[in-house]
Amino acid sequence: MVSNGITAGSMSSIILTSASELNADQEDSVFVPLLSPPNFTSQVAIVGSNVCPIESLDYEIFENELFKQDWRSRGKMQIFQYTLMKWLLCFLIGLIVGLVGFCNNLAVENIAGIKFVVTSNMMLKSRYGMAFLVFSVSNLLLALFASMITAFIAPAAAGSGIPEVKAYLNGVDAPEIFSVRTLVVKIVGSISAVSSSLLVGKAGPMVHTGACIASLLGQGGSKKFGLTWKWLRFFKNDRDRRDLVTCGSAAGIAAAFHAPVGGVLFALEEMASWWRSTLLWRSFFTTAVVAIVLRAFIDLCYSGKCGLFGTGGLIMYDVYSETISYDLMDVPPVLALGVIGGILGSLHSFLLDKVLKIYNLIYEKSVAYKICLAWLISIFTSCLLFGLPWLAKCQPCPTDTSEACPTIGRSGNYKKFQCPAGHYNDLASLIFNTNDDAIRNLFSKDTNDEFQYSSVLIFFVTCFFSSILSYGIVAPAGLFVPVIITGASYGRFVGMLVGSKSNLNHGLYAVLGAASLLGGSMRMTVSLCVIILELTNNLLLLPLIMVVLLVSKTVADGFNGSIYDLIMKAKGFPYLETHAEPYMRQLSVGDVVTGPLQLFHGIEKVGNIVHVLRTTRHNGFPVIDEPPLSESPILFGIILRAHLVTLLKKKAFLSTPALTGDTGGIDASIQFSAGDFAKRGSGNGDKIEDIVLTEEEMEMFIDLHPFTNASPYTVVETMSLAKALILFREVGLRHLLVIPKLSGRSPVVGILTRHDFMAEHILRLHPLLVRRRWKRLRFRFPSLRKLFWGNSASIKA
Amino acid sequence: MVSNGITAGSMSSIILTSASELNADQEDSVFVPLLSPPNFTSQVAIVGSNVCPIESLDYEIFENELFKQDWRSRGKMQIFQYTLMKWLLCFLIGLIVGLVGFCNNLAVENIAGIKFVVTSNMMLKSRYGMAFLVFSVSNLLLALFASMITAFIAPAAAGSGIPEVKAYLNGVDAPEIFSVRTLVVKIVGSISAVSSSLLVGKAGPMVHTGACIASLLGQGGSKKFGLTWKWLRFFKNDRDRRDLVTCGSAAGIAAAFHAPVGGVLFALEEMASWWRSTLLWRSFFTTAVVAIVLRAFIDLCYSGKCGLFGTGGLIMYDVYSETISYDLMDVPPVLALGVIGGILGSLHSFLLDKVLKIYNLIYEKSVAYKICLAWLISIFTSCLLFGLPWLAKCQPCPTDTSEACPTIGRSGNYKKFQCPAGHYNDLASLIFNTNDDAIRNLFSKDTNDEFQYSSVLIFFVTCFFSSILSYGIVAPAGLFVPVIITGASYGRFVGMLVGSKSNLNHGLYAVLGAASLLGGSMRMTVSLCVIILELTNNLLLLPLIMVVLLVSKTVADGFNGSIYDLIMKAKGFPYLETHAEPYMRQLSVGDVVTGPLQLFHGIEKVGNIVHVLRTTRHNGFPVIDEPPLSESPILFGIILRAHLVTLLKKKAFLSTPALTGDTGGIDASIQFSAGDFAKRGSGNGDKIEDIVLTEEEMEMFIDLHPFTNASPYTVVETMSLAKALILFREVGLRHLLVIPKLSGRSPVVGILTRHDFMAEHILRLHPLLVRRRWKRLRFRFPSLRKLFWGNSASIKA
Repeated sequence: MVSNGITAGSMSSIILTSASELNADQEDSVFVPLLSPPNFTSQVAIVGSNVCPIESLDYEIFENELFKQDWRSRGKMQIFQYTLMKWLLCFLIGLIVGLVGFCNNLAVENIAGIKFVVTSNMMLKSRYGMAFLVFSVSNLLLALFASMITAFIAPAAAGSGIPEVKAYLNGVDAPEIFSVRTLVVKIVGSISAVSSSLLVGKAGPMVHTGACIASLLGQGGSKKFGLTWKWLRFFKNDRDRRDLVTCGSAAGIAAAFHAPVGGVLFALEEMASWWRSTLLWRSFFTTAVVAIVLRAFIDLCYSGKCGLFGTGGLIMYDVYSETISYDLMDVPPVLALGVIGGILGSLHSFLLDKVLKIYNLIYEKSVAYKICLAWLISIFTSCLLFGLPWLAKCQPCPTDTSEACPTIGRSGNYKKFQCPAGHYNDLASLIFNTNDDAIRNLFSKDTNDEFQYSSVLIFFVTCFFSSILSYGIVAPAGLFVPVIITGASYGRFVGMLVGSKSNLNHGLYAVLGAASLLGGSMRMTVSLCVIILELTNNLLLLPLIMVVLLVSKTVADGFNGSIYDLIMKAKGFPYLETHAEPYMRQLSVGDVVTGPLQLFHGIEKVGNIVHVLRTTRHNGFPVIDEPPLSESPILFGIILRAHLVTLLKKKAFLSTPALTGDTGGIDASIQFSAGDFAKRGSGNGDKIEDIVLTEEEMEMFIDLHPFTNASPYTVVETMSLAKALILFREVGLRHLLVIPKLSGRSPVVGILTRHDFMAEHILRLHPLLVRRRWKRLRFRFPSLRKLFWGNSASIKA
Repeated sequence: MVSNGITAGSMSSIILTSASELNADQEDSVFVPLLSPPNFTSQVAIVGSNVCPIESLDYEIFENELFKQDWRSRGKMQIFQYTLMKWLLCFLIGLIVGLVGFCNNLAVENIAGIKFVVTSNMMLKSRYGMAFLVFSVSNLLLALFASMITAFIAPAAAGSGIPEVKAYLNGVDAPEIFSVRTLVVKIVGSISAVSSSLLVGKAGPMVHTGACIASLLGQGGSKKFGLTWKWLRFFKNDRDRRDLVTCGSAAGIAAAFHAPVGGVLFALEEMASWWRSTLLWRSFFTTAVVAIVLRAFIDLCYSGKCGLFGTGGLIMYDVYSETISYDLMDVPPVLALGVIGGILGSLHSFLLDKVLKIYNLIYEKSVAYKICLAWLISIFTSCLLFGLPWLAKCQPCPTDTSEACPTIGRSGNYKKFQCPAGHYNDLASLIFNTNDDAIRNLFSKDTNDEFQYSSVLIFFVTCFFSSILSYGIVAPAGLFVPVIITGASYGRFVGMLVGSKSNLNHGLYAVLGAASLLGGSMRMTVSLCVIILELTNNLLLLPLIMVVLLVSKTVADGFNGSIYDLIMKAKGFPYLETHAEPYMRQLSVGDVVTGPLQLFHGIEKVGNIVHVLRTTRHNGFPVIDEPPLSESPILFGIILRAHLVTLLKKKAFLSTPALTGDTGGIDASIQFSAGDFAKRGSGNGDKIEDIVLTEEEMEMFIDLHPFTNASPYTVVETMSLAKALILFREVGLRHLLVIPKLSGRSPVVGILTRHDFMAEHILRLHPLLVRRRWKRLRFRFPSLRKLFWGNSASIKA
């Protein structure tokens, strides 16, 4: 009725014109060197320790004919299957993660325990050289083993894995992070790295392990397990997988710290980008299972069947069943603790970020460098751990302690080390010990006179730098425990300085110090608060911990972002924030959409599709209908690359460019099932390169209508970028179609992807905004700007 | 270029045609009788105890020219002001809510305390008749006072207020819920209702109070306080108000239970419909302030300056500093406790819902009935409380207790009541006591022999029914404490039945019983878990509480919805769920959009606008441009009723229907400031009825372009309703424009509002779906269907 005048010819000329414009959109494939400066806009990122191509995840309900039929046809049986499977999967995740967490602890405690027992026995016989040799060689072997399996078998298992999982939950799919290989290496590597006395944690790797287990369980069982295939088919999409991975990461923290509520809150506050209250319930169920499994096994171990695991294997510093009292006088030192902790935390993050960048430059050269660095750091750490305690003066044993002094064996407050009988070495009690035991010593009450100022200070400095150096090695390595131990020694030192002026004992200061450094580095609030409460088991500390966390986070936020954000940025993950930057208000959607836009027609030639798929790496293509199929050119919908590849593989071609007509949907549903278009696990999809077509087939046609998402989300080109971001982020989109304000042009202007909301992309297109942006940053850090960015002319340009 | 052929005439004929179709959309004003059956689709709901018209809130960024200029022009100073004010407001909310919470407790403890002391003293002198008279008359006066101020001054203050606040945070604006009047009545009424020995709680009213304080603080200070006006102008929109109200409700729970972390989680899990992690941080800060304020005042009270407040005024049952051990043997009774608790909880909700509906029918008649009912229930409760203890046998005082027995005065485990010296009445210890003291007695350890089976059972039955009867009275009344006390007596009874076969003492069973009934009634998980932990201060109970909550919630979910959902439904709040119902997959957006659609042109006659505003109650109107203003009819955007009224009030009219041209935007920004269009507090907006225009003015024109939101969110008419709901709910919309799939018709098909996603509306339009829907429900409750809905033919039709 309207615009009959327009012809197919004039329409395609419009498309050609827009196609000749510059630049790439729709998830382009430009491989840009990544490490300096960090690049948000490319499709590659450092995953673990390797550079890999990454993709976005599809959370949108892809409403094509086939899907609609499948979706609508789900009866009560299917809904029952789906619900049951969801809970069953959560139960399995909890069970397996709980088991893995327990075995992890058991292995670490036994391996590290035997090492310390053997070494200590040698030192009791004054064979110090031999002791050092055994200590350092066993550390070296463990560290080398961890780094070699990581480097050669699963580079994606390097590091804590939290940034990767966080990016995944934001919609960034990196290959291999959830593969079986990565899982095995992560578990084994984490055990040997932690046992090797490197200052690395096990919480981060546990989170990655949990997420990995969850993803593998929900993947549809792979084709090998025919049994579960049918029931798991509802989980073959990114939405359900995302929910499972969230539960898995909650289970990871729950298993690492024996903190079920803290785990749920950690997943909620730090990991998840999308959250619903049903998910809260489901992750709570998962962590409850973890807690029960752990509890059952710990009960088993009380009977002494777990070797050196003993009673304190899991971090659980249940040291304060007494009533704590404090008054207004205690507030100033606690506030100071928070402020300095915030500064130290952000400094820690800053240095860690820099060191990681240097490491990455080294790693670029060859795999040998990765192993070499692990080797060097292990030797260095062994020297520090064994050498530093000699600096400390031997202390006479206190007479009124309930514990044996000096401790013979591995666990205890008073290490003998090189000291004569009746004396102990306080620095060795901290440094020549497993991390868990060191934290327990720092947190312990009634030990106000145990440590000297110098010992705690030396320990703090050692931990601060050694944790920064150790994190970047190519092995599974977490940050939580190193930060807790560093913070605890800092807090204990402050407590000793405040001395008897405070009602709080030094152990409580150590807890608050750990909180302040965690707050300054990880920038979480509620979840850290609950994790610390669950670790120390005393709720009366709550108000003080809240104050410390709030102060340290506020202070640290003035300097830089959280450590995970910094790492994600350095790794190049295009993380989509919830809030819009102020400059996004200045821009409309049309200002950032760039061409060329690849379009398909409702009925398209096979050859064209193959050509476009081979020459671009776009993942979504608008489908338009033109006269004579419709009265005027209209946007029919959007089709995904993966679906096109499936169509080509099945060779569902037409010989003439005619509509399949009323039977179209029926045809499609006979030839295809919803399973054909289900999303595979990452990296398992078919590739266009593998499809071979004859010349004849290339000349045939495909009716794309039944396979096209006919109701994509759209925005008008005049919408501000900030407002479009709200839609894109809240709904969790991969492609957002931009339609023109005025009709009479092509029915689609472009496609917005994650990439188009990244600061680097926008500021490259609109360099004038850069100056305004720096103004805003300068405002945030008035005096620190020079320190961080210098006066480079390029910024002012 | 395209479709020059269409004329203005043909376009308006399209509009006229569509306008002649049936039914109302865009927030219609059909006042439907509300109480039976509950009506989701109308614009009226029971707010507190009165029926009021309600509206939706505007969370969408309303991108008109004026707003864009204001938004873009915000420099660093404005951003600084905004950020500072946000934190300052949170601080103030925490401070004031903490103060109110403390005063509330202080008042309740003193009023109720004096009452019990006077009565007990009379009973010591055996003047039982006089004691009953004093007791019942003082209760009656307090209850009447509470119900009269509520009924006559602020009906919106009746009930707990949690459903109203929850609906507000979902986007439903009910008038008066956040007014100063409501606030004052809520606080005063809650104090006297709780003091009057009615079984009502203070947590719900505290949540409403917190939300109310937050909303009042953020409202821009009203015109009286010129000082704060300018700095608060950024908060004159529904988005920022929503954040403040969320923080306020978190502060409410934190103040009621002295549970800061629990408060944050309660707001997150139960109250908030939209959540960001910055909001988590801000509400955490708010509750930290509450915790510190409370802590400071409690410290003050330790010195005995607070009258009868004593040391235990705030609910804080810090009774388990011992180590708890339990083994596998304890699991079966705990599971049974959870299952039965779930059933009892859902039964409680079911009965409460029915009783509320009966009450509402009574209340419809006149205000006198409201007062009358409060009078009756108060008398009845007084008789129960004073009469039932006479049924219990006097017990001889135990010899090995550390407490005085019998207790003289008000607080203590062993009430003397009518018993001779050296004896106590165990039922009176529970029933003739404040709620807090009763809970403390039930939770207490080392009192396994204190209570008889019959006493605890009588107490449980009394609480169960009395809490149902008391909640519906027209006075501020919470549900948390009644459910806790009922659950605790149930749990204690189970503990007594299990007896010495369990490692857990009866007090712990009472805690678990409270958890199970809370889980069965409120259906929260993590937040209840943390609240109970913070109340009882023992983390070792955690795994058991988690299990009990999960079991009871799962069992209860099989029967009905959470109590707050039932109440919201009964009150008629159109609450928008996150998940789509299965039948929404069967429908496309076009199937539910109904006419007539009221459109405006870009340049519209004043008379037309006035006519449309007077004859409809729609809140959003699409604005279209037609030739000659544009080449073809296009959708320019959407304009709000409130903005139109402002335009009419300012009389910014044109004498000819011409574009203001390039200077249009400038003109608008000279005549209007962003403040003119800022959203007022609910009910404060101008009304079309108040605007008087001359005949001449009615013939003039307004250029709507600068005031129209030119980039509304749109969906295509073929999108499934389930998918449109995701956009509507996640982004938080009030109006969602539906555009046609094919061009050549009107550029807009209709507007979706909250109303269109409500089950009642959809099922009225598509009665065939009803049968399928019942099928689904029947699947959920296979055997219970008959009980709940009977075999009515109308359902099957």
